[in-house]
Amino acid sequence: MKVPRWKKAEFEEIEYQPTSIRELLKEMKNICELIVDLAYSAILFNSQEIAEEVRYLEVRMDKLNYQIRIMAMLAARNIEDAEKMAGILQIAQAAEKISNAAGDIVKILSYKLTHPILPRLIKESDEIIRKMTVSHESKAIGKKIGELRISSETGVRILAIRRGSKWIYGPKGEVELKEGDILICVGPEEGMEELNKLLKGEVEVLE
Amino acid sequence: MKVPRWKKAEFEEIEYQPTSIRELLKEMKNICELIVDLAYSAILFNSQEIAEEVRYLEVRMDKLNYQIRIMAMLAARNIEDAEKMAGILQIAQAAEKISNAAGDIVKILSYKLTHPILPRLIKESDEIIRKMTVSHESKAIGKKIGELRISSETGVRILAIRRGSKWIYGPKGEVELKEGDILICVGPEEGMEELNKLLKGEVEVLE
Repeated sequence: MKVPRWKKAEFEEIEYQPTSIRELLKEMKNICELIVDLAYSAILFNSQEIAEEVRYLEVRMDKLNYQIRIMAMLAARNIEDAEKMAGILQIAQAAEKISNAAGDIVKILSYKLTHPILPRLIKESDEIIRKMTVSHESKAIGKKIGELRISSETGVRILAIRRGSKWIYGPKGEVELKEGDILICVGPEEGMEELNKLLKGEVEVLE
Repeated sequence: MKVPRWKKAEFEEIEYQPTSIRELLKEMKNICELIVDLAYSAILFNSQEIAEEVRYLEVRMDKLNYQIRIMAMLAARNIEDAEKMAGILQIAQAAEKISNAAGDIVKILSYKLTHPILPRLIKESDEIIRKMTVSHESKAIGKKIGELRISSETGVRILAIRRGSKWIYGPKGEVELKEGDILICVGPEEGMEELNKLLKGEVEVLE
C-alpha cells in the first residue's frame, strides 16, 4: 500500500533544527492563510488531492509549533523575556488551532459527508482554486513569474508553490519556475486553462 | 464608558432569522478567510482598530453557527439527510474554531504581550493591510470600484467592505462605494496613500 505523503511526514522523526523564531512564525502565518483557502477548496471541488495538501500542511504546522516552543524556552532568560515569549507561543498555538480546524474541514471528504449544497457555494463566484504541475516540456521552466505575465494575461494568482518538500508562499514576480513545481492557483476558470496549457508545454507563451 | 461595537453585538439578542444554509455557510467561509488575515495584521501593525474588527467577526461567527445548527435540525427529515447535515455542521464548527483562534491571536494586544519580533515579520513584504473610511467629501461616493480603477492605479485589493453592520466580502468591480463605507484593503503602502486621498476627498481621481 502506498503511504500518503502526509502520513510519511507524520512519522518522520522530529528533530530540533536551529532556525529563528521569526522564520518559524512567518511560515506559520503563511500556512494559516493558505490552509484555510485550501480546506474550503478541497470540499467545494470534492478534491482529495487538495485535501492531501491540507493534511500535509497540518502536520508541518505541528512540527513548527514544537520547534517554536523549544526556541522560546531557550530564548527566555528573565521574566520580561518570558512574558513576551508567552505572546509568541499564544500566536503559535492559535496557528495550530487554525490548521487543525482546516484538517477537520477536509475530514468530511473521507467520511463521505459531503452535501450537495457545497459545490453550489462557489457557483456564483468565477474564481476557482487549482493545483497544477510544471511539466518537463513546459517553456515556463527557468522563466520568472513576472516575465511570464501570468497575472496580467490570465488573471490567475499563484498562492503558493510547492517545490519538493519546500513551499514558497505568495511568490513574487522574481521567482523562477522549475520543472516539477506544483502551483496552487486561484483565478477564473478560462485563465486557469490557459496557464495549464503553458505549464504542460501545449503553448509556448500566454496571450 | 463607550461600549465597543463587538461587545454590543455580543449582547444583542440572538434571533432565529430564516435564511438558507447555503448563505450561512458562504458567509462563514468568507469570514474565515478574512479573519485570519485581519488577526495577523492586527498584531503586526499593533492595531487595536483591526483587532476590534476581528472580535466583531468572531461574535458574528458564533451567531451564524447558532443559526446553522437550528437550520440543519429543521432540514433533516431522515437518516440520510441527517448524515449529510452532520458534514455541514462539522464545517461550521471548524469555521468557529478558526474564528476563535483568530480571536486568541488578537488577545495578545490586550495582554500587552506583543514581542518586538512581530513587526519585523512583515518588513520583507511591501504589502500592508489598512482600514479606510469613505468620507462624505470623497468623489468616490456613488462610483463603482471598477470604474475607479483602484486595483490598476494603486495595486490595492479591497478584501472587504463594512457598510453599517453588513459586510461585503471580496467586492467585485460593479459594487458602488457609499459614504461611510469602511474598506479593509491590502496592498503596497504608496498605493494605499493614494487611495486614502481619494477616499478622504483630497484628490478627485486616482492617477
